[in-house]
Amino acid sequence: MLQSIKWENGTVFILDQRLLPEKIEYLKCTHYEEIAQAIENLSIRGAPAIGIAAAYAIAVASLSAKSFSSEEFLSDLNPVFQRLINTRPTAVNIKWAVDRIKKLIENNLSLSVTELRDMVIEEAIKIHEEDIQVNRKIGENLIHLFKDGCTVITYCNAGALATGGYGTATAPMYLAKERGINFKVIACETRPVLQGARITAFELMQAGIDVTLICDNTAGALLRKGMIDFAIVGTDRTVRNGDVANKIGTYSLAVLCKENNVPFYVAAPLSSIDMSISTGDMIPIEERASEEVTNIKGVRIAPEGVKVINFAFDVTPANYVTAIVTEKGVFKPEELRFKL
Amino acid sequence: MLQSIKWENGTVFILDQRLLPEKIEYLKCTHYEEIAQAIENLSIRGAPAIGIAAAYAIAVASLSAKSFSSEEFLSDLNPVFQRLINTRPTAVNIKWAVDRIKKLIENNLSLSVTELRDMVIEEAIKIHEEDIQVNRKIGENLIHLFKDGCTVITYCNAGALATGGYGTATAPMYLAKERGINFKVIACETRPVLQGARITAFELMQAGIDVTLICDNTAGALLRKGMIDFAIVGTDRTVRNGDVANKIGTYSLAVLCKENNVPFYVAAPLSSIDMSISTGDMIPIEERASEEVTNIKGVRIAPEGVKVINFAFDVTPANYVTAIVTEKGVFKPEELRFKL
Repeated sequence: MLQSIKWENGTVFILDQRLLPEKIEYLKCTHYEEIAQAIENLSIRGAPAIGIAAAYAIAVASLSAKSFSSEEFLSDLNPVFQRLINTRPTAVNIKWAVDRIKKLIENNLSLSVTELRDMVIEEAIKIHEEDIQVNRKIGENLIHLFKDGCTVITYCNAGALATGGYGTATAPMYLAKERGINFKVIACETRPVLQGARITAFELMQAGIDVTLICDNTAGALLRKGMIDFAIVGTDRTVRNGDVANKIGTYSLAVLCKENNVPFYVAAPLSSIDMSISTGDMIPIEERASEEVTNIKGVRIAPEGVKVINFAFDVTPANYVTAIVTEKGVFKPEELRFKL
Repeated sequence: MLQSIKWENGTVFILDQRLLPEKIEYLKCTHYEEIAQAIENLSIRGAPAIGIAAAYAIAVASLSAKSFSSEEFLSDLNPVFQRLINTRPTAVNIKWAVDRIKKLIENNLSLSVTELRDMVIEEAIKIHEEDIQVNRKIGENLIHLFKDGCTVITYCNAGALATGGYGTATAPMYLAKERGINFKVIACETRPVLQGARITAFELMQAGIDVTLICDNTAGALLRKGMIDFAIVGTDRTVRNGDVANKIGTYSLAVLCKENNVPFYVAAPLSSIDMSISTGDMIPIEERASEEVTNIKGVRIAPEGVKVINFAFDVTPANYVTAIVTEKGVFKPEELRFKL
């Protein structure tokens, strides 16, 4: 299984997903700013993966910190925390990873700088390893849906390459494949950045999974024809009332699933659930450059100067979501606040 | 206003829409087969425009026919009729234009070949001119929706370039612009062939209309945010029960409109209404090459060898349609069969 991010002796290697599926090339990062930029420019993307990247960015920054005291170590890292949180506003995982490491340092200010540094590095590696375990558990919690001959639709890439490994939405697919279940996946291409075409289709084909690519606007027709049994998508931030922020177009897919009585599941590691926000309308939605829409791989597809709206995410209200599937179990969206 | 097709002394000029918006280039056609291929390869597209193109193709063929009798003239044209009908299966306009000219010849077999030839040419020109008048009438029947400050969403290109002039869905936009009404248009890019981005945005910008381009998957979010007042789309074939075949993704937009209480109008010239078919599920849906999805302007965007489903059209059931707007007036979809 291809890895989105690797830590090797103080150097972070990030698979440059902008080059997929043509090229498999890793960016070598030894400064946290390189990692921040890799997050911003979508070399690495996917809520869990950018959380891991943020953790490693702090690890890299702590290696080069010249702090004399543990308090200075913490304050030297503050601009790093802020830079990372500012990279992308919608996914909560970056803030989650930053807060986790920050709290760890704050709770251990009696240690030496060297000890803190080792602790930060260990914690980053642990965040990465835990993510893989979390995804496998999410997979186990969804595997019962996979019967021989079934077809699942997914959106964007909540796959191995969006995480530390296995993916969230794709975890049950990898498990089902390991267990010899015969199933099909429909991958929506996911305009404008085409993560579904370039990444989901790619990683599932690499794993020998039967995947078919469609344009996003084709999902409705397939749902209406009864060609799809259930949907599984990821999430960048799911909030207290069960509203789900995910890649733009997720809301449309959810509405079309409901209209056609097809269950719609959200694979949501606890790290992507933000109990501090009460409803989806309060989630900040990133708007990205219009060139993502008007140009594809450098080729212009729209008139010069055309106005564009390019929201990177949308919010799917809880009432369209059949269940939110975490490593702790399967929840109805409205139960989330009581059971977690 | 740019014209999709022109007849000049026995030569047909077809705007090569594959090159838009970069290049404005006309294909010069003096053989019907050139026109048939231009229809197949989407140099000209849009249900009304390909009906006009088919009529001109018959005109061109009749110019070069070496028939000795009017009966022979008719039988010489038979392969032309068949070739044109086979170009694209979903839109009914080609069959409509072919049947109209064929019947005209059949009803006038007492005339000489020369007289029939002139009659066919006149009829093709008449089909073209009538289309423009029809579109203006459709525009008049929709203009009341356009209030200052309103926003309309459209899909694919049911514009001037999909017709002989003015377009169907765009006709009220051009009229509203002529009358100084202040409104905005949201154009969905319309994957895979991007008619919305390349053609609708282009032709509306040329006319000075305020147009914003979005990816197809963004329409839902805008509808949910209340940013859109109504939708107008075209149709390739609308049938007796009011079901509407149109570009793939139209069904999704219609469902999302209904879910958000946004009226959904279909601009349908009578030539696109097929009373011989009782429900939308009986409309043949064209499937096109997977390369349309995996490559954009020659640039590959998906893994080599990935499976693809590429339906060119979908069917929107009548219950999602607020009204079907023809040159004869505005009809509820369920009224169509009684009132037309």
